[in-house]
Amino acid sequence: MILHEDSRSGNCFKIRLTAAHLGIPLEFRNYDVMKGETRTTEFLAQVNGNGRIPVLQDGDLFLPESNAACFYLADGSDLIPAARFGRADMLRWMFWEQYNHEPNIATLRFWVAFVGEDKLTSLQRQLLSAKREAGEAALALMERHLAERDWLVGDAISLADIALYAYTHVAAGGGFALSQYPAVSLWLDRVAGHPRHVPMNTDTPLAARHQQV
Amino acid sequence: MILHEDSRSGNCFKIRLTAAHLGIPLEFRNYDVMKGETRTTEFLAQVNGNGRIPVLQDGDLFLPESNAACFYLADGSDLIPAARFGRADMLRWMFWEQYNHEPNIATLRFWVAFVGEDKLTSLQRQLLSAKREAGEAALALMERHLAERDWLVGDAISLADIALYAYTHVAAGGGFALSQYPAVSLWLDRVAGHPRHVPMNTDTPLAARHQQV
Repeated sequence: MILHEDSRSGNCFKIRLTAAHLGIPLEFRNYDVMKGETRTTEFLAQVNGNGRIPVLQDGDLFLPESNAACFYLADGSDLIPAARFGRADMLRWMFWEQYNHEPNIATLRFWVAFVGEDKLTSLQRQLLSAKREAGEAALALMERHLAERDWLVGDAISLADIALYAYTHVAAGGGFALSQYPAVSLWLDRVAGHPRHVPMNTDTPLAARHQQV
Repeated sequence: MILHEDSRSGNCFKIRLTAAHLGIPLEFRNYDVMKGETRTTEFLAQVNGNGRIPVLQDGDLFLPESNAACFYLADGSDLIPAARFGRADMLRWMFWEQYNHEPNIATLRFWVAFVGEDKLTSLQRQLLSAKREAGEAALALMERHLAERDWLVGDAISLADIALYAYTHVAAGGGFALSQYPAVSLWLDRVAGHPRHVPMNTDTPLAARHQQV
């Protein structure tokens, strides 16, 4: 199987991490989202008409949407709870991730650590405070949930943990202080401590500059 | 099972429609989102800490996120493709719905037909054109896909069709002209023509005023 990706993207990392847990080998095709390489005519026609990565390719089948690709890899494995409610509850956290977490926490990271605050449009700049507030609310919801349990769903790691780990563990890149969320921080260590864990490529174009600031 | 809902919400309607297809009876608890009834201390503590509907309740289990609730109801039924790729491809469209479709098409409907354009904040007003553009792009993607097939995934109705029908069929409430999307329009008729289909409550607070305009 081939993963069409930008290795600095948390959405792409979810799929790498799922594959690592399952011992599934992947090939990689790299695209630089900063250079618009996922919006070319060729990419739109052959890989994803929505102009986005990641896309998981299995033979002549193409599967966009990170959480759907994780589900495809993990279908039938113990990364998906066997009980009916647990399975749906796992998907609940994955839908929540795409609606309430990613558009705030991942977008702020992209704007701050990749685009640069001085290069944002006026509208993006006006959205900063609303996205920061919504991102903090998302982390606070996770904190309350994880204060009482080790994993998001049931008593073992599942795709919900993998999906939410991806952008939570690099939230500092968007200016979020994870030290304010002790239960989330312990959970991040728990995910990263799994024997099958692999690290994400956390290079960001503006990292050097931000370290100087 | 109990559905905590506002019957005018497309996200709630998805669950009603899934239950109708499966012949599963639901009880309903109604909340008026315009009056903040899902942000009360009681609701946050007992139903959903995220302050949103729909929530599907099964005994003492509470399941937020519309598409997760649909999956819970339909798990094991023919609304979910039996083949591994089809199952993931169905989820692909459902994740896409929550990321690319709902935040644009449903949000514009809410702002235009429920809040009223004259009552929007300055920031919301500035977002109108970006959300309109993204909503049109989402409809165009569906149009290209449905021009070549009857259903979003495989050769039968699935949760992907139900999830995307919900806000697409009332997109006119947000100012989208569905007549510009003939394949989408035929698909809407196909979904609505299913013998188990039930209609949505399409009352909107500002409908009367908009008819006069």
